[in-house]
Amino acid sequence: MGDSYELLKSRALPDQRAAIRAGDYCSHTAGLGQGYLQANLAIMPETHALDFMRFCQRNPKPCPLTGVSDTGNPMMTTLGRDIDIRTDVPAYNIYRNGKLAGSANDISDIWRDDLVAFALGCSFTFEHALMRAGHRVWHVENNSTVPMFRSNIDTVPAGPFSGKMVVSMRSMPEERVAEVIEISRRFPLAHGGPVYWGDPAEIGISDISAPEWGDPAPVGPGEVSMFWACGVTPQVALEAARMPLCITHKPGHMLITDVAEDAEVPVLRFN
Amino acid sequence: MGDSYELLKSRALPDQRAAIRAGDYCSHTAGLGQGYLQANLAIMPETHALDFMRFCQRNPKPCPLTGVSDTGNPMMTTLGRDIDIRTDVPAYNIYRNGKLAGSANDISDIWRDDLVAFALGCSFTFEHALMRAGHRVWHVENNSTVPMFRSNIDTVPAGPFSGKMVVSMRSMPEERVAEVIEISRRFPLAHGGPVYWGDPAEIGISDISAPEWGDPAPVGPGEVSMFWACGVTPQVALEAARMPLCITHKPGHMLITDVAEDAEVPVLRFN
Repeated sequence: MGDSYELLKSRALPDQRAAIRAGDYCSHTAGLGQGYLQANLAIMPETHALDFMRFCQRNPKPCPLTGVSDTGNPMMTTLGRDIDIRTDVPAYNIYRNGKLAGSANDISDIWRDDLVAFALGCSFTFEHALMRAGHRVWHVENNSTVPMFRSNIDTVPAGPFSGKMVVSMRSMPEERVAEVIEISRRFPLAHGGPVYWGDPAEIGISDISAPEWGDPAPVGPGEVSMFWACGVTPQVALEAARMPLCITHKPGHMLITDVAEDAEVPVLRFN
Repeated sequence: MGDSYELLKSRALPDQRAAIRAGDYCSHTAGLGQGYLQANLAIMPETHALDFMRFCQRNPKPCPLTGVSDTGNPMMTTLGRDIDIRTDVPAYNIYRNGKLAGSANDISDIWRDDLVAFALGCSFTFEHALMRAGHRVWHVENNSTVPMFRSNIDTVPAGPFSGKMVVSMRSMPEERVAEVIEISRRFPLAHGGPVYWGDPAEIGISDISAPEWGDPAPVGPGEVSMFWACGVTPQVALEAARMPLCITHKPGHMLITDVAEDAEVPVLRFN
């Protein structure tokens, strides 16, 4: 029997993670772990880890690095007291040679001594901050997924990792654009300020109503399309690198950490 | 004939870097490259580079990573149009097996195909922001070096990299502490907010008038000692790792980048 989303949402974070670890909850994490940093996931062999860290350093907006495991150690020691990356994400995608080869709710059976796990910040954090400041976020209010587009903006390559930047779109009233920029810039670990706002064609988006990922969202009269670097960008770069093995979270099914959402740095110490 | 500091200070950044590259200027860089990000330097064999990046990720306040070269490539492509890390720092320290083995003004002769260069943010950036906001920074006004102390705060280890956090001290009037915290937190690539303020004994500093590095600075009546994570921390961790070869900048003799001091991310693109 799976825990339902509403039931799990009412529980404390340790109970939520226990349900995920036990395989009782395998669905999306939006709205769970309120107040705590959620993270995208990328697991790969150590042979590619240095280049991937370079890719993240060179592309900090789409790839804000929030945690890195020791090689072969599945515990994300700086992100929580007891986070086992093999079991504590609700659902995983498994790529072989750059192609999606399957999905799983537990990767204990394919974990190896040469794997390195990376956690990358996600946009939930700044969306929560925007909403607390009274800004409306359409896709959250309408219980849909943010619209995402492949832009014409190149990432800065590192080793085999490269590709165009994927961006997510949120439309905002023109008079609130400056404040939205200012708020989101305060969260560099959650993609920071927008990479672009205005005419979507300028960044290679020909039809704003047809996102490549997620659901369409309207741009109302007097509203401006604002685009943020998106966590799907590293996913595209990982596919381009055609590694023999790579494991990511299933989109929307994030790692919930013990790090406070407004922490200055995403590093915890347990002595 | 060496260029004098005052003469060089009056020139544009490209001329300053040209003088450094040519070996005509080999002294400290405080006050040079006004408005541009300066960086600490650590160069090491690729075998240690992944662990060092993990160390930086886990200790972002003392080790704010602002650039990483490709293995064997001396050009810091994301920090400037033409930055050759072998020649563009005024003075280098060379460590062998964790011990200082010499210094140089040019490391072209010992550069190798397996070396990786790391640039780390430094405190100049937030000091400039503090001064622009009307705060007085004693060691700058008195043309001395900031006092630095080995604290009792442990860094988060990664591979062979570990050690206590080195902190720098700036004293501020009690009523301005909150504003100073707020300003410095805006510069995560320049050590961010202070790690501690108040009684120095609490972080293991027994004599505030006797810094381990730099010059003593007074704490006046009504002033609070404020401590920031310091870029000497990675230097201590590098020595602890006892690598066969490691090259750093000579303290105070930084890399001047083409990145604006107030840039949201320290990554440039030249197409």
